[in-house]
Amino acid sequence: MNKPISDPHLLYEDWILTETQFDPEQLNYKETVFTIGNGYLGTRGSFEEGYPGALAATLINGVYDDVPLFYTELANCPDWLPLLIIIDNEEFSLSRGEILSYQRQLDLKRGLLSRKICWRSPNGKTIDLYFERFASQADRHVVALRCQLTAVDFDETVLIRASIDGNPENKEGFNHWLILEQSYDDANTSLLVRTRSSRIELGMAVNLTISGTQAESKNTSVPGFPTIETKFDAVAGKTITLEKIVTVFTSREIETPIKAACNKLQELPSYTELLSDHEKAWKSLWENSDITIEGSSEAQLVLRYNLFQLLISAPQDDDRVSIPAKTLSGFGYRGHIFWDTEFFILPFFIFTQPNIARNLLTYRYHTLEGARRKAISYGYRGAMYAWESADTGDEVTPRWAPPDEIYGEDIRIWCRDREVHISSDISIAAWWYWQVTGDDEWMRDYGAEIILDTALFWSSRVELNIKRERYEIRQVIGPDEYHENVDNNAFTNRVVQWHLEKSLNIYDWLSKTYPEKTLELEEKLQLTSKRRWRWRDIVENLWIPYDPETGLFEQFEGFFKLEDTKLADYQPRTRSMQAILGIKETSKRQILKQPDVLMLLYLMGRTPDTDYGEKVLRKNWDYYAPRTDITYGSSLGPAVQGLVAASLGKTVEAYKYFRLAALVDLENTRGNAAEGIHGASCGSIWQAVIFGVAGVKFTPDGPATKPNLPNAWKRMKFKLYWRGDWYEFDLKSEGSIS
Amino acid sequence: MNKPISDPHLLYEDWILTETQFDPEQLNYKETVFTIGNGYLGTRGSFEEGYPGALAATLINGVYDDVPLFYTELANCPDWLPLLIIIDNEEFSLSRGEILSYQRQLDLKRGLLSRKICWRSPNGKTIDLYFERFASQADRHVVALRCQLTAVDFDETVLIRASIDGNPENKEGFNHWLILEQSYDDANTSLLVRTRSSRIELGMAVNLTISGTQAESKNTSVPGFPTIETKFDAVAGKTITLEKIVTVFTSREIETPIKAACNKLQELPSYTELLSDHEKAWKSLWENSDITIEGSSEAQLVLRYNLFQLLISAPQDDDRVSIPAKTLSGFGYRGHIFWDTEFFILPFFIFTQPNIARNLLTYRYHTLEGARRKAISYGYRGAMYAWESADTGDEVTPRWAPPDEIYGEDIRIWCRDREVHISSDISIAAWWYWQVTGDDEWMRDYGAEIILDTALFWSSRVELNIKRERYEIRQVIGPDEYHENVDNNAFTNRVVQWHLEKSLNIYDWLSKTYPEKTLELEEKLQLTSKRRWRWRDIVENLWIPYDPETGLFEQFEGFFKLEDTKLADYQPRTRSMQAILGIKETSKRQILKQPDVLMLLYLMGRTPDTDYGEKVLRKNWDYYAPRTDITYGSSLGPAVQGLVAASLGKTVEAYKYFRLAALVDLENTRGNAAEGIHGASCGSIWQAVIFGVAGVKFTPDGPATKPNLPNAWKRMKFKLYWRGDWYEFDLKSEGSIS
Repeated sequence: MNKPISDPHLLYEDWILTETQFDPEQLNYKETVFTIGNGYLGTRGSFEEGYPGALAATLINGVYDDVPLFYTELANCPDWLPLLIIIDNEEFSLSRGEILSYQRQLDLKRGLLSRKICWRSPNGKTIDLYFERFASQADRHVVALRCQLTAVDFDETVLIRASIDGNPENKEGFNHWLILEQSYDDANTSLLVRTRSSRIELGMAVNLTISGTQAESKNTSVPGFPTIETKFDAVAGKTITLEKIVTVFTSREIETPIKAACNKLQELPSYTELLSDHEKAWKSLWENSDITIEGSSEAQLVLRYNLFQLLISAPQDDDRVSIPAKTLSGFGYRGHIFWDTEFFILPFFIFTQPNIARNLLTYRYHTLEGARRKAISYGYRGAMYAWESADTGDEVTPRWAPPDEIYGEDIRIWCRDREVHISSDISIAAWWYWQVTGDDEWMRDYGAEIILDTALFWSSRVELNIKRERYEIRQVIGPDEYHENVDNNAFTNRVVQWHLEKSLNIYDWLSKTYPEKTLELEEKLQLTSKRRWRWRDIVENLWIPYDPETGLFEQFEGFFKLEDTKLADYQPRTRSMQAILGIKETSKRQILKQPDVLMLLYLMGRTPDTDYGEKVLRKNWDYYAPRTDITYGSSLGPAVQGLVAASLGKTVEAYKYFRLAALVDLENTRGNAAEGIHGASCGSIWQAVIFGVAGVKFTPDGPATKPNLPNAWKRMKFKLYWRGDWYEFDLKSEGSIS
Repeated sequence: MNKPISDPHLLYEDWILTETQFDPEQLNYKETVFTIGNGYLGTRGSFEEGYPGALAATLINGVYDDVPLFYTELANCPDWLPLLIIIDNEEFSLSRGEILSYQRQLDLKRGLLSRKICWRSPNGKTIDLYFERFASQADRHVVALRCQLTAVDFDETVLIRASIDGNPENKEGFNHWLILEQSYDDANTSLLVRTRSSRIELGMAVNLTISGTQAESKNTSVPGFPTIETKFDAVAGKTITLEKIVTVFTSREIETPIKAACNKLQELPSYTELLSDHEKAWKSLWENSDITIEGSSEAQLVLRYNLFQLLISAPQDDDRVSIPAKTLSGFGYRGHIFWDTEFFILPFFIFTQPNIARNLLTYRYHTLEGARRKAISYGYRGAMYAWESADTGDEVTPRWAPPDEIYGEDIRIWCRDREVHISSDISIAAWWYWQVTGDDEWMRDYGAEIILDTALFWSSRVELNIKRERYEIRQVIGPDEYHENVDNNAFTNRVVQWHLEKSLNIYDWLSKTYPEKTLELEEKLQLTSKRRWRWRDIVENLWIPYDPETGLFEQFEGFFKLEDTKLADYQPRTRSMQAILGIKETSKRQILKQPDVLMLLYLMGRTPDTDYGEKVLRKNWDYYAPRTDITYGSSLGPAVQGLVAASLGKTVEAYKYFRLAALVDLENTRGNAAEGIHGASCGSIWQAVIFGVAGVKFTPDGPATKPNLPNAWKRMKFKLYWRGDWYEFDLKSEGSIS
């Protein structure tokens, strides 16, 4: 396994991530790493003063707009960061002059990003600068930054221009916004813009406070770029403080967003007070979500960093959005929502922030209409969830990947049509939420409809193989996307079976508990007894490619007949096996993009009634682990692989996989961190630590642990919510386990 | 035939186009109509102060950059227009306050766009404003505007912000530019940007002069928006003049465009002098290109307007660009170059501005490599020109038209693969240029290679039907795009035959006149005697679906067997027949998108040796004219239809078609003028007037006329260049002809 590149300029300590040197080569990836957010919006770690090639972005969840090829994407919102510092006609920028010292820190506990620089301008003026910023967790429509500036060796007029950049662009240069309104008076600096197609309005208002000197501010806005200018006479050794506060609303929340932004801005307390409220809110968030590790301050920071990424992208007040695959931290996957949320991310929230979990799942309820339209367009019944989903729930996976070469052929992307397990992944997540929280009302009002209508989809999607007397699911893509359009993928078939079984249970429960709601759903979904009988028939006769004698699953029908390949022969490598061998050649071999069967076994192993047991797990591990492209296949793989390794007691190996997953963004181990945080990886890290390292299982008496702590971890503490109670765990290492 | 909507707010007089009222509904189409340009760049007629929903654009010919779906497009360049006028915190805009009077004029003689407004602000301040602007025809890197401002009823400080908007967008919101450099000092206001993919750099510099008052200007630039701010105390009744001059260079012309722009700006004479030089340059341009009409001041303006559009988009100093289908006036067709240039536009330049014609044709020489790559990618030999061409000559027709509906199928665009007549259209244009100018050196250095290498393409593209003892060209699209993938399109087959015949002539001429060049080309193009023999064979045996007995061409093999449809039955209508019947249904009928056979007959009729004669023309007119969707089919149709009508003496009918073509942009008769000027329509208007109305034919003694003047035209004068001489024509009406 490739060792992740260790970045000598990053320090990991408990709560504080520190970058000790600025490397322009890492500009975009570090913008991702230093993202801040509050669930309503995320802002990448770009600099207030800008930098050539920067990919600045503020993404507000749910603010989608049309874009060619990808249907829709999260629109990059007006940038609230710009703060220009001009000394002697020379603007401060790390791309010019001399950086005498540099330090950037992300304080996870306080949700605060800061930067300390000593800079000498090309004409020899030295200044000390301290920046900090936060996206308020206490009042999610407020973002703020502070800049403290000390002239070191000059007395000179300093010019400040604080702006909102109303021409934000996506990575390719697309600007989703039309400018509707903007103020040109000194009392008020605000901007109203609207997305081109989805016609979402966004209002922002900004003010700038200066202390430590005499200065007057005035509005010098140009179209699309509301700007407050101020100037003051800097005196060597004297510190001036600038505070820029920005409010933001969209028409998703309120009818007149610009008015709301201006009003809110007027009512706000001081920067200091805002920051203090924000810190309090973070404290309460961490209360239930933190996992403390003693023995490795580094592992502690890395783990918290991954949880932090989930917390800053989780909608707390909105149940019509979910968490995009790249969270709110970058342009990758266009802000689309995948099974990443339900399978990888959701457990963290179900067990530590059930209210957020509820929002995330309710998003799937609100997008059922899109899933129904998709089912109809493919000739099926019920609800067929989109592989990639956005605001409406309609399928937004691009249909084609354009060729690299001008006369090449487009590559058809089949996930939209064939990666159907998503519909069961969502239903399983809904079921788990209900199991853990006992939130019967939610199940009645939202969950049941999701689970039952997707079950109706399945009963139109499976096929009866009359000769072999079994149901089959043909032409699918399982979690392992190296093999497209296969028949009877074990993962898919087993989760469908599970899903239909639970659907029957849910129906029984609902009809006993809420007979009126049951009638309503029967009517709405055309849920006849004949169809429920079909579910039972499918549950009993759906073929699972599993050999009880050997304990081995066949990943899909015919997998074992594919050519076997020793992945070790290709080491060392820095590309995926598919990139090395090509799409077609890889599909002919027993090479996995991610652990397909092992994921199934992990999922089924969470409860005793479906657990296949350690023997089967080990058997399948021995077969599939060496055949999985864990380093450069799917980023969804390593943590689950590690989780299974840990639960088999392979602690050293597990830890290696965890590192691979946990550092995917921090150390850019796959080279694509610039595109945004790997949300699923963050979520699976939590599962790996809880289910793998702590070995949590759910017994009739509640959650129980069977720890496999790595050597260095002396002690580990965390909380889990389970059926109305918070369970606190305090695990101690019992020495080396391997 | 639908009568074009007559716009009561447009006046047509000789040289002056006047708009007497501002209608926000017409915003984008009028931006197209009031485009100015100088062949290097074009600037749409957007307002200096902006307007919600405006599609401002400055397009520089040859500045292409990648874009999804369409491969590449002309990048909208930084906008040099912005001039904000702020009175009492209220910015001047036609979207606010009250418009007390309004007039916009385009002076075609002087190439000057002006606007006179009396405006009352929402808080009751009245100002008189006069704007004018031009893109210098004398110094093509200079654009300038002047604003004269008179406070009517107030004394108040007025704030002016003159900017370059460095965040220009295409129609969908795509910004092609990255900002590289920008000045923040008062002495110098400039911007350097670079396209994302093609990495073309563009530098602009701006200054602002104010006279009639005391004022100081200062740089208040924000990132990407270089701005000069000035303020002055307006006094009621006193006029203040602002002059904004902008210089622009790209790395296509010079290594350091920002330096070039700054240097040029410093060296420039006054605005008045710049304007006077500009007017002189226009005078000399019109010298040879004007057509004067006595008897209809309206027809005079309309005709000149169409010629003006060609003159402002024609490259005078650059032979690596051509004229895009929508000129430099809009985003339609993405700045791609079609056969529109060679077939429709080029004759105007060949006969009145041969130097420009040479540039346009040499563009095709410089893009031969792209045409060769295209041929190879399709498995052919030689050069296969792109249906849509941009900087490299590679095919840039989009491959798919995305569906309107989210689950719809993409529509394959076949023109890229099958509309192959383009290669002969170009060769015919090259041959005509040579015939008219006698420019042997050009033919030797550029033209021969174009004609011969495309001929080599044909000899790999035709098929020998051995049973029927004839060559055929199968699976093509002719000019009539309502019928895709047909066999033996008469237009295509006949132009290919003509092309191969001329190729043999050119080869003979070249080998006699320039034997060394001949050897060089034989070697380079692998032009063997066997292949030339094949050309002869094809010329003699290529099947033309023409019946000499009836004189009727069959548009393509099987056309006469298609269902016949009376177009009159569908009147009145406001959509194309294809929109009414659908793609498939239309293709099954004898309905033409544009006059396919008539175009061929017109083309062949230019010289006596290929002319099929009036009898054949009339016969085919009678058959095809009633079957052609001339109102809403292709915009390329009406002028040619009118031309043929005129040459058959149907002057009244002809005039109706001319109106339809000539007003397509001025009065937006097809509803798509917002997308940009219909360049081919402008060019075909010239051909219609010269070859149809004046009835010019080329005899061994030079050009001769056979006039068919419409009633109202009392007299018509024009010049034509022919083999070293300028022929002046002065035709007078001999009374009513119909």
